[in-house]
Amino acid sequence: MRILIKNIDIVTMDEQDNVFKKSNILIENNLIKFIGNDEINPNIVDYTIDGLNKLAMPGLINCHTHLGMSIFRNYADDMNLSEWLTKKIWPAEAKLQAEDVFWASLLSMAEMIASGTTTFCDMYFFMDKVVEALEISKMRGTLARGIVEENNLSDFKINESEMLFKEYNNSLNGRIKIMFGPHAPYTCSPEFLGKIISSASKLNASIHIHLSETKDEVENSYKIHKKSPIRHVYDLGLFELHTIAAHCVHINDEDINILKEKNVYPVNNPSSNFKLASGFSPVNKMLKAGIKVALGTDGAASNNNLNMFKEISMASIVNKAVDNDPMSVSALETLKMATLNGAYALGLEKEIGSLKVGKKADIIILDMDKPHLCPRNNYFSTLAYSAYGSDVDTVIVDGNILMEKREFKTLDIEKIKYMANKISNDLLNNR
Amino acid sequence: MRILIKNIDIVTMDEQDNVFKKSNILIENNLIKFIGNDEINPNIVDYTIDGLNKLAMPGLINCHTHLGMSIFRNYADDMNLSEWLTKKIWPAEAKLQAEDVFWASLLSMAEMIASGTTTFCDMYFFMDKVVEALEISKMRGTLARGIVEENNLSDFKINESEMLFKEYNNSLNGRIKIMFGPHAPYTCSPEFLGKIISSASKLNASIHIHLSETKDEVENSYKIHKKSPIRHVYDLGLFELHTIAAHCVHINDEDINILKEKNVYPVNNPSSNFKLASGFSPVNKMLKAGIKVALGTDGAASNNNLNMFKEISMASIVNKAVDNDPMSVSALETLKMATLNGAYALGLEKEIGSLKVGKKADIIILDMDKPHLCPRNNYFSTLAYSAYGSDVDTVIVDGNILMEKREFKTLDIEKIKYMANKISNDLLNNR
Repeated sequence: MRILIKNIDIVTMDEQDNVFKKSNILIENNLIKFIGNDEINPNIVDYTIDGLNKLAMPGLINCHTHLGMSIFRNYADDMNLSEWLTKKIWPAEAKLQAEDVFWASLLSMAEMIASGTTTFCDMYFFMDKVVEALEISKMRGTLARGIVEENNLSDFKINESEMLFKEYNNSLNGRIKIMFGPHAPYTCSPEFLGKIISSASKLNASIHIHLSETKDEVENSYKIHKKSPIRHVYDLGLFELHTIAAHCVHINDEDINILKEKNVYPVNNPSSNFKLASGFSPVNKMLKAGIKVALGTDGAASNNNLNMFKEISMASIVNKAVDNDPMSVSALETLKMATLNGAYALGLEKEIGSLKVGKKADIIILDMDKPHLCPRNNYFSTLAYSAYGSDVDTVIVDGNILMEKREFKTLDIEKIKYMANKISNDLLNNR
Repeated sequence: MRILIKNIDIVTMDEQDNVFKKSNILIENNLIKFIGNDEINPNIVDYTIDGLNKLAMPGLINCHTHLGMSIFRNYADDMNLSEWLTKKIWPAEAKLQAEDVFWASLLSMAEMIASGTTTFCDMYFFMDKVVEALEISKMRGTLARGIVEENNLSDFKINESEMLFKEYNNSLNGRIKIMFGPHAPYTCSPEFLGKIISSASKLNASIHIHLSETKDEVENSYKIHKKSPIRHVYDLGLFELHTIAAHCVHINDEDINILKEKNVYPVNNPSSNFKLASGFSPVNKMLKAGIKVALGTDGAASNNNLNMFKEISMASIVNKAVDNDPMSVSALETLKMATLNGAYALGLEKEIGSLKVGKKADIIILDMDKPHLCPRNNYFSTLAYSAYGSDVDTVIVDGNILMEKREFKTLDIEKIKYMANKISNDLLNNR
């Protein structure tokens, strides 16, 4: 199967930050076969996408999600964090069943596809249902069963992670990866974290964890462990494994040195951190230290979207005011956070994150023929500051077309919306 | 002419924050005739809009724009403010001609209509061209000729403002209002501001001015006038006139007391203030003091959009982190900033800003049938945290349909985009 995207402007996000005008992309099966100005013989092409007034870029990589939580979107907002969790989110989550997570994950995938995300990194439960949803949507995903230490269930959750890894890691043509997901150092004791590390080490699995999200969390860590959460898990040996650390909001210079030294990948979640009043992560400082900061949305209960273009804009625009520097976190830097840095965070930098011959065909195409994208000056600025998720016209993952002209090709969107509304109503009002 | 919007959910933004489910709105000529559950006799209706899966709310009011600047969108970003102004924006603006501002204003109006804005408050030059564009677009607008003191041109600019006021104020069925636009206290001397105040007073005109946007501006004001910019113009008597004060970022408690005492209307421009690293305006503090803070985008050169849904989300989400309080600037409060408070700022609170029988028919209709707006829980949260400008399906101003099913009804959008690209290319590369 060969797909030609012809006569299109291209922002590659490769190491040279190449931008092509009116060029061609040839996809062969699931790989990018050619990018450039050469004419492509139409006889070898099975399907052609016209790139007039369009722009191609690598699919966005959302490095921190809780897909199942989209069922709680706009259910509880403008609340104090502990009240939000204890009175609203946790009681609702306690009633969640496997089928609920299945439909919520499909809803989340629909939202992500419609706003240009091709790969996500999820932490939640009933993960076999997320696998099922991913198989249907044909997205690319890295999944971790979230592990909170909980009496006699703790070992069961580690076993579940091992089984998930053995059964699904690298399955679906390599579209699925499995990580281990210890929730956070404040929900897992040092001994329990040790167990998780040892179990993950045996499988050479990576780690997805929340670190230093709130000021309270960091203060408590100093009270209990006499050190920061990052230093604490570093001392436990967690960072000997490839690690994605969501949030990293309240971090100090020693923390940054550790993240750099151990090649940890922090995931910045601006909307969620702002909306929950968690604070401002020192993104520019980490980037300047050479750390590959990735970008994520967090769950839809705290964001309240799963739209990476919103996060790109938030990260770039807001950090300038935080740092009192209009040059802080440039358009190009946030776009990199949402693409190539995300690929590094997932250990997939050789496969995705930029448009390059030989990489997987994970490509999004934006319709540039809109008033808010006019006139067409600098493309990095356009994508970071002016473009919306709704400008995404076509989405390709692993050579499969998941959306074209904004029409879903793999998802029964009417049924998904119906089921999500039904479950939400049932769960929050009746169950 | 009678238009019926039937079977629609309605967020009125009226004083009672009423929300209706599956109700009807009847428009007669340019006014709202009825809102509620009563059946409307179809025989009296000329045109019907089906509200299934849709939501109606008052058109958004963008209280601070420089429409002509959309021609500079994505032309100069990630730069130091003074370099941005002196090396990029001012040299480009010096080459701007009347026709350029005409097409740039039409482009801006297209973007605003497409994202749900029905009324704007503009400050720029060649304002007769903005009047012309507004006549075509059929939007509602308040226009001020921006006045920077400039040798022998100063008096000319005041005369121009007087002529604009006499010729256009309340014209086009009341859709146009004219204000006086002294740019800022740092670009107009006290004597010159006095002249403007006296000229505006004679006409009972309102004022649109920039105040306390940057830290430097405030520090310089203390150096020169020994007081804050707000205290300075207060002492000059500016606030005896109805005043819109754009930005109000770096303000102290005395400033807030003055704004409150004199019923000044601050306009918060979050994206622009963040992106230019100007800082964080104390929005919550002003709201809590009882000040009716309005919302705006500023120009597309510094935002880089004219999309009020983006500003609603920015204002609400980011202020929570700034104030370290997840309850700061609630969803409802930001929606009010973008609607009823904006109407107050423009002195139009009896005509627009909420959906109410007898008010002008300035209504936007959102298509709620999207994955990112599902499930449908709290509507204020949905609109503030999850909705995008691109969810706006239909726009009605003064009883005229300006957009329906995302199709422009008053604008030749292909020609506008063509001209904007042409002018931008010409202006920035060749002229």
